[in-house]
Amino acid sequence: MIEQGRHRVVVVGAGFGGKYAAKALRKAPAEVTVINGTNHHVFEPLIYQVATGVLSPGEVSTPVREMFRGQPHTNVLLGWVTDVDVEGRTVTATAPGGMPYQVPYDTLIVAAGTTQSYFGNDRFAAYAPGLKSIDDAVELRSRILTAFEMAELAGDPAEAARWMTFVIVGAGPTGVELAGQIAEIAHRTLAGEYRRIDPAQSRIVLVDAVDRILPTFSPESSEAAARRLRRIGVEIRTGARVTDMDDVAVVAGGERIEAMTKVWSAGVAAAPLARRLAEATGAPTDRNGRILVEPDLTVPGHPEIFVVGDLMSRGRLPGVAQVSIQGGGYAGGVIRRRLTGKPAGKPFRYFDKGDIATVSRFSAVADLRGLHLSGLAGWLLWLLVHWAYLPRGRNRMSALIRWTVAFLGRGRAERAVTARQARIPAERSEVPAVTPAA
Amino acid sequence: MIEQGRHRVVVVGAGFGGKYAAKALRKAPAEVTVINGTNHHVFEPLIYQVATGVLSPGEVSTPVREMFRGQPHTNVLLGWVTDVDVEGRTVTATAPGGMPYQVPYDTLIVAAGTTQSYFGNDRFAAYAPGLKSIDDAVELRSRILTAFEMAELAGDPAEAARWMTFVIVGAGPTGVELAGQIAEIAHRTLAGEYRRIDPAQSRIVLVDAVDRILPTFSPESSEAAARRLRRIGVEIRTGARVTDMDDVAVVAGGERIEAMTKVWSAGVAAAPLARRLAEATGAPTDRNGRILVEPDLTVPGHPEIFVVGDLMSRGRLPGVAQVSIQGGGYAGGVIRRRLTGKPAGKPFRYFDKGDIATVSRFSAVADLRGLHLSGLAGWLLWLLVHWAYLPRGRNRMSALIRWTVAFLGRGRAERAVTARQARIPAERSEVPAVTPAA
Repeated sequence: MIEQGRHRVVVVGAGFGGKYAAKALRKAPAEVTVINGTNHHVFEPLIYQVATGVLSPGEVSTPVREMFRGQPHTNVLLGWVTDVDVEGRTVTATAPGGMPYQVPYDTLIVAAGTTQSYFGNDRFAAYAPGLKSIDDAVELRSRILTAFEMAELAGDPAEAARWMTFVIVGAGPTGVELAGQIAEIAHRTLAGEYRRIDPAQSRIVLVDAVDRILPTFSPESSEAAARRLRRIGVEIRTGARVTDMDDVAVVAGGERIEAMTKVWSAGVAAAPLARRLAEATGAPTDRNGRILVEPDLTVPGHPEIFVVGDLMSRGRLPGVAQVSIQGGGYAGGVIRRRLTGKPAGKPFRYFDKGDIATVSRFSAVADLRGLHLSGLAGWLLWLLVHWAYLPRGRNRMSALIRWTVAFLGRGRAERAVTARQARIPAERSEVPAVTPAA
Repeated sequence: MIEQGRHRVVVVGAGFGGKYAAKALRKAPAEVTVINGTNHHVFEPLIYQVATGVLSPGEVSTPVREMFRGQPHTNVLLGWVTDVDVEGRTVTATAPGGMPYQVPYDTLIVAAGTTQSYFGNDRFAAYAPGLKSIDDAVELRSRILTAFEMAELAGDPAEAARWMTFVIVGAGPTGVELAGQIAEIAHRTLAGEYRRIDPAQSRIVLVDAVDRILPTFSPESSEAAARRLRRIGVEIRTGARVTDMDDVAVVAGGERIEAMTKVWSAGVAAAPLARRLAEATGAPTDRNGRILVEPDLTVPGHPEIFVVGDLMSRGRLPGVAQVSIQGGGYAGGVIRRRLTGKPAGKPFRYFDKGDIATVSRFSAVADLRGLHLSGLAGWLLWLLVHWAYLPRGRNRMSALIRWTVAFLGRGRAERAVTARQARIPAERSEVPAVTPAA
């Protein structure tokens, strides 16, 4: 029941920012409504493991409703928020099937996140999808696994080689993790499974315009990761900007690489909602479209609107999970203090817990406040941190099993690619896409 | 490597029939090529658990290549077989993206299975999808879970009630299992997660034209299953043929039921390939289009073509897993004997191991050669049988965990419905559907 009279807080997005904002409001005298574009919260650091067949979507996500079941004053609505009426204090969202609906608010927390940015070359999106959602991960998994199938069916060696060449654009943690996983798929998982091709002959090329991989990490971590990647068969092209791309190739740093399968993890752009919010409020934005906020994470001139997470720009904070987690919790706390008559707290202060990225089995790099770990030590820390952060007990147990299988064995449990995902025109599995209109 | 000179066997389909046929040829002096429409073998008896969010696709499937990794003379190709040239002994298949290719054979085993039949009302397919593949299961899961979300957003009680009414057409094991699962989703899984609707107010209606549910089971099992279903809130309409359907309702037995979500598990039709095979060989077919075979499962007049599994009609054998498993193994054995100069064996003889269907938590019905079990005893047997048949060790471990969570707890691990699956026009997750052409 939506209780009348309580202060209405609307939270846009149930990623890390929205999750922790709503959790911080658990005991506040407010009626909270979380509007998310899907029915689940994604544990984004592990999304690349869905893309590479190690984990299932369910293992890296939690149903939003399940997350807030214990908070009777937290309502959840499914929908994609498209607009904010700042004067009327209303958000507009689109339900499945396209029907719009409005939700009024007294206070708004925008945690809508970011999308891939192609630096102005949006046509690349068709050839090199990003990796921000489960849809993206399933699409990428399908492309990676089906590429080897197409190589097996290929009519000549050049065609087979194109199918067995993978280019990852963007050498941040996601790109590095993907490159390492694809190399392991080619060298371990698929060994012995093909008769005409040898998957170990695959080329995996990691490209980035900057001068070293993992540019936000310490130089020691960058170097350790690069060494490990090369050892497992990944080619690295730094200082190589992607200037062109089509369905069969990519041009990076002036070099044309023939590759059917490309991934883009190189840039972020604020969710389209940010542009509308900035226009409506006059808020300044950075060059990625992210909103420049006040020290208390509110929009300048609009203390009733908070922006947290990837969408927020404050100081030089990176778009990483911890910034969203801490920012979301902070914003929820500010609102709770307001509603319970407490004095305003301190400005938002980010506590940098460090960076960590896995490179391959038994090898990761970590920067912890000046301390640098790599190799097996880094990997054990990675395992611990991600396992601890995985939502809910059952996810931990099944992830542990999947990881044991993937890391100690050669198996990947989630390799099923459906006919629709692989674009096989199969007569029997085409369910016409009908969206019922009530 | 495809070794020249060996007898070439092509197996169409890697379901139960194709899997056991190819496995029976493991040591035969033949070069076997398995052509499947997806990259995985599906454990069909548990596919309904993907549709209801208990298991992930990976947990009910095995990659075909992984299945045959240990058989160096078994080749796997991804493709949808569309035609057979009986004179030229060649099959034609379609690769991902639509490119056709040919594969020659000396002996052919057709195990292409069946699709849903709508008894001539193919337009029902858009409103009531079937449940034969992982694509179907993911689509159904999306519709079921999103229906509750739409009910929460609904503008009036009649609209909400339409969204919370589910009709399952076809009361065989699949329909019964689905009905029981949807009832448990409504009454257990979603309890406490919604604020405007009460999921326990859902209506789940199981309809069939025949006079009792589970018509292929014993009358005792039918009655036990019906009692259990009613106790958990499922309405049963037997002797009710579906005569009309649109996006908001279904008419069965003269009664109009307003329901947005419908499932069809009522009839089977032979894969389209069967019609072409029958035309090319003159083979007789039954009224479902299945090929009537000789006692050794070959096509009349064509001892080089075997038909096994759901696609085969022999005596009055039902289209169940055991018939495919035993028939596939039998056909492979006949070929192996031919190639090793042994005398022809006996005609195919089906050993009926019985029927089993789960109804709800802790309740299943089983007929074992005259012995009838129900309730908890039946359910423990169901658990044992399905656990033993699950492909591969890791699937067993993770399924055990998922079942523990689902049966002892209230959780379902695989509830994530993506934006694309829920048909939410989300600006950031639309990856253009591009099929690269090499």
